[in-house]
Amino acid sequence: MQKSLLIVVSAPSGCGKGTILGQILKDEKYYYSVSATTRAPRQGEIDGVHYRFMPKEQFEQLISENAFLEYAPYCDHYYGTLKQPIEDALAQGRHVILEIEVQGAMQIRKLVPDAKFIFIAPPDLETLRQRLTARGTESEDVITKRIEQAARELQYKEQYDYCIVNNILEDAIADFRSVIRAEELKIN
Amino acid sequence: MQKSLLIVVSAPSGCGKGTILGQILKDEKYYYSVSATTRAPRQGEIDGVHYRFMPKEQFEQLISENAFLEYAPYCDHYYGTLKQPIEDALAQGRHVILEIEVQGAMQIRKLVPDAKFIFIAPPDLETLRQRLTARGTESEDVITKRIEQAARELQYKEQYDYCIVNNILEDAIADFRSVIRAEELKIN
Repeated sequence: MQKSLLIVVSAPSGCGKGTILGQILKDEKYYYSVSATTRAPRQGEIDGVHYRFMPKEQFEQLISENAFLEYAPYCDHYYGTLKQPIEDALAQGRHVILEIEVQGAMQIRKLVPDAKFIFIAPPDLETLRQRLTARGTESEDVITKRIEQAARELQYKEQYDYCIVNNILEDAIADFRSVIRAEELKIN
Repeated sequence: MQKSLLIVVSAPSGCGKGTILGQILKDEKYYYSVSATTRAPRQGEIDGVHYRFMPKEQFEQLISENAFLEYAPYCDHYYGTLKQPIEDALAQGRHVILEIEVQGAMQIRKLVPDAKFIFIAPPDLETLRQRLTARGTESEDVITKRIEQAARELQYKEQYDYCIVNNILEDAIADFRSVIRAEELKIN
């Protein structure tokens, strides 16, 4: 049977992580780990697709049952990654993709040393600024904060196994596939 | 500048290693390390392409100068890998491919822990036998010996970093490229 991998992916906002993963996840051998949260669904968000929405009591019950690989409170709500769906997908021989910010990723690094950590980076912060500006959905202030946040996140890059620079989208997708294929071919 | 890699490749005879490397080496970013030997050139063999042919005295002089990464005597002749051309190619930012049998590879493993080790394997020994038979260039006896030799070499597979099974040639070439690309994207 194909080797199953737990693949942890982080990227600053605006690096095209969503687009890259959208292409990768078209292949059924990948399973996307959906985070659990106690916050209410926003317009258009679907339970089980964008998040697993659940009441706070249920989330805390699951915490007490040690059901989370990692979890953290954020803005008065919990966010977390349930173990069971990941273990099920791995047992089916699928690769699990876990999209998570840098600090959560570092927690998982300690808990699952076998996991593979991929950082998706912008070519540089100036390009990132241009991309965020071109989107036209955020104010100059918000963009500046995002750039600062990206600069902070980039400092964690060295803690990852691989860094894919998303300069040309097709190349970045090919690079992602190369990394996974190489990991499949790895001995031990 | 691009990260330079020393890539050590081993494969039992008949696994298609030559054909795979022939495709890979079309890209100028790769440098193929040519072995030095004291044996005489055979018909059609070109100095500097198939081997660096040299007299025994010169080889022994180079041994005394510690110029070899590895060397070994075989059938009354020396065979070895010179350090300098490899160091030069790596300094130019090229990837060096070193084709070597399993025991030489294990020597290099100790000397160059950063090198990447790729084993090219047949789908199974029965397929290997069929391929060698289909070539029609060797007697049944020679083929049997080669299969036995392949079985011995396959035992070293676990000591390598990657194993590429050459079932479909195009897939094996793509796998080889994926491994190199992933190593390029590796952090540290």
